[in-house]
Amino acid sequence: MRHLQQELDGLQGKLLEMGGLVESSIHLSVLALIERSQRYADEVMQTEARINALEMENDERAIRLLALQQPLARDLRFITATIKINSDLERMGDLAINIVQRALDLMRVPPVKPLIDIPRMAELAESMVRKSLDAFVRRDANLARAVLLEDDAVDNLRTAIRDELIAHMQKDTSVVPQALDLILISRHLERIADHATNIAEDALFLVKGIDVRHHQAEQS
Amino acid sequence: MRHLQQELDGLQGKLLEMGGLVESSIHLSVLALIERSQRYADEVMQTEARINALEMENDERAIRLLALQQPLARDLRFITATIKINSDLERMGDLAINIVQRALDLMRVPPVKPLIDIPRMAELAESMVRKSLDAFVRRDANLARAVLLEDDAVDNLRTAIRDELIAHMQKDTSVVPQALDLILISRHLERIADHATNIAEDALFLVKGIDVRHHQAEQS
Repeated sequence: MRHLQQELDGLQGKLLEMGGLVESSIHLSVLALIERSQRYADEVMQTEARINALEMENDERAIRLLALQQPLARDLRFITATIKINSDLERMGDLAINIVQRALDLMRVPPVKPLIDIPRMAELAESMVRKSLDAFVRRDANLARAVLLEDDAVDNLRTAIRDELIAHMQKDTSVVPQALDLILISRHLERIADHATNIAEDALFLVKGIDVRHHQAEQS
Repeated sequence: MRHLQQELDGLQGKLLEMGGLVESSIHLSVLALIERSQRYADEVMQTEARINALEMENDERAIRLLALQQPLARDLRFITATIKINSDLERMGDLAINIVQRALDLMRVPPVKPLIDIPRMAELAESMVRKSLDAFVRRDANLARAVLLEDDAVDNLRTAIRDELIAHMQKDTSVVPQALDLILISRHLERIADHATNIAEDALFLVKGIDVRHHQAEQS
């Protein structure tokens, strides 16, 4: 087996490759919604197979490294962090599929309203994914903390979307199913942002050796 | 450090303790909804702190075991599985909190309808959590597969709940916010069931050494 550092770099590289695919899936899933595009939806479906294959590959790599190299201290924390991040990324891929499923339903009916807050929320969620992975790779605690703070903006958008769509449903009951689909899409985006904060927490754990989960108030 | 097997048993015991708390939180969160009980809601909130503490404790235990005992093969897979299950259980605890938050909002307004499918869905989700942990502890592949199959029943209930509540919203727009809260609760229960299937997949991986994720069709 090659030198440990090479193996760790290889694992990190695979995780970043997966992160790139996940970001692009999130982006395309919301584009499929906005542009009512079957082609983008298909593309997300195809990418998911690749994301799932990478998840299994990365898990195997991480477990093999633990078995054969018996890494200690920081390397060990790095590898256990990759196991968690790997699972967060795979679930984000699933959420992009959930968004696409709603988008495909919505393509068959007239639009409820022009979409403004959902694309904004998607942009924020994508940027959180990118930054959390950057923070992990660069061992950048400040960037990781910035991701944790952005989660509030996501929550605010979620509430705004909910309130606006409730008003639409009450004004015109024929749009209830579509409005519900849009609310569910906003929940999927919120969960994607939650997974990004998990990655940011793993990055902080790696850099600082402290566990910031369940102590977010102290971080801000 | 004590013998490895003792340490592994200790880790498994802590995971089961956490599983017990999570099950009881799910149960009480839905009871808070049904009985409109602030007391049950408070109890779920208090339990969450304990679940979060256990999550961090279990993670530390698992990483310490990896570092100090350098376990191989099956023990290694067991420990990496506990890291994943630990995170699934913690997220179920969060979802119980999400249900409670909706329940607290719903207590302030008149009931939309008698609740039948949501308690049924909660019962199913709880039983999936219990069975998936049993399958893991007993290394029981058949029980793990049974959990994977139950997920379909959860999906069917979710769809039934959605359709019924859409009809309510369209008949009486004043109940739109409450009906939406109930739909969101059904989604939280669906996600709890998803986490239980993750645990069942980890159990199968441990027993069979094969990765059943992303191959569920072949399992049934």
